[in-house]
Amino acid sequence: MKISVYAIPASVEERELKERIAVVVDVLRAASTIVTALNNGCKEIVPTAEIEEAIMLAKNYEKDTFLLGGERNAVMIDGFDLSNSPHEYTPEVVEGRTILMTTTNGTRAIRKVSDAKEVIIGSFLNAGAVARYIWQRGVDVVFVCAGTDRKFSLDDILAVGAMLDMLESMNAEMEMDDLALVSLHLYRSYKGNLKKALESACHYKNLVRAGFEKDVDYCVKMDLFPIVPVYKEGIIKIAQNF
Amino acid sequence: MKISVYAIPASVEERELKERIAVVVDVLRAASTIVTALNNGCKEIVPTAEIEEAIMLAKNYEKDTFLLGGERNAVMIDGFDLSNSPHEYTPEVVEGRTILMTTTNGTRAIRKVSDAKEVIIGSFLNAGAVARYIWQRGVDVVFVCAGTDRKFSLDDILAVGAMLDMLESMNAEMEMDDLALVSLHLYRSYKGNLKKALESACHYKNLVRAGFEKDVDYCVKMDLFPIVPVYKEGIIKIAQNF
Repeated sequence: MKISVYAIPASVEERELKERIAVVVDVLRAASTIVTALNNGCKEIVPTAEIEEAIMLAKNYEKDTFLLGGERNAVMIDGFDLSNSPHEYTPEVVEGRTILMTTTNGTRAIRKVSDAKEVIIGSFLNAGAVARYIWQRGVDVVFVCAGTDRKFSLDDILAVGAMLDMLESMNAEMEMDDLALVSLHLYRSYKGNLKKALESACHYKNLVRAGFEKDVDYCVKMDLFPIVPVYKEGIIKIAQNF
Repeated sequence: MKISVYAIPASVEERELKERIAVVVDVLRAASTIVTALNNGCKEIVPTAEIEEAIMLAKNYEKDTFLLGGERNAVMIDGFDLSNSPHEYTPEVVEGRTILMTTTNGTRAIRKVSDAKEVIIGSFLNAGAVARYIWQRGVDVVFVCAGTDRKFSLDDILAVGAMLDMLESMNAEMEMDDLALVSLHLYRSYKGNLKKALESACHYKNLVRAGFEKDVDYCVKMDLFPIVPVYKEGIIKIAQNF
């Protein structure tokens, strides 16, 4: 299978998406939060690119059946129920509910790749499940990192490397582009000590400085949850068919 | 000094360029060919984004004072004097002449960053000279890789890493973005065996397959020439002031 990796959504060649699975990766923190929320029993997540869109959509839901979640500049949005911290998305809070979510980089990336054959969400937390999903499908894959402020973000690239490492251990035959090769090499260089790799990385440092150390420590944990979030027709749910 | 790296010109944040030196990196082969030609005594190089523009400009020059050089899809352009192979740019051929040059990725990248405070050309061949130039200036730097077909290209990223490695050995205080950190890490991983790193890389493989192994072997040689090409007002010449 062909494996392409894009460091930011703007670089994606849309003609590449058609016959491929797109894996959206936004480790800090949208993808990690989505995986956590679904694992903790939330019914579905509706990602929106803009705040106003989430607020408009909320009008379609009964009281207590939904929550508004997300961030701008890493901070909770006025009037929202939840920020972008995975620790807020506990079973007590999210079980059975729809979450309308908007984040700076992550949900925008999801919308950008909606032309792909399938769109799934990847992070360290579900790296093994994503690798198994791809391996079972056996089709070409495009990893689309959310990046940070339109720039290459090391946390996302390392998570791509973690998924490729797992795919390779399943003996998947991969024809990798240059950024896929780099992601795999970097992950293997830092495997077992991801925190050291990320200590100098911009987004990681900024979140730690802003007091989110607990979140970033959590988001680099490998393979906690055996689920794959799938985005289809505007909604993210757990994949049932694998 | 702040160090930013972009894997492709399209990602460059133009507002970042104003007060910075932009280093355009296109190892295979435009930057390597420009450095070689200037070292071999060519008077100046005029990069153009389009073939037609090079042909139009040629009308302003006396016979025998100029040469048309460049490629499309790695092949010499009909009616041109030279391709994009550095081996053609010998002293016998280029001495004292102006070269009007158009290439798929490299010359386009040069034109894209022309708003920067200064624009210089970097490659493995002149990595040490570029590092010394930056160190003497002491201002913020943006490395802009040409990439290959609008994608991340490992050869360029490794050359950026080589220049950063030299800057660090001069005790430059660098505040690196994530892709700068990655470039430096990758270069150090493969230092002394760059060919091994590049054997799996797309552009490198394609050029070897097309019969250009001699060129690619040459383009990864470290620090052959102590010159820095500077692009100013549409023309590339050797920097005199360092």
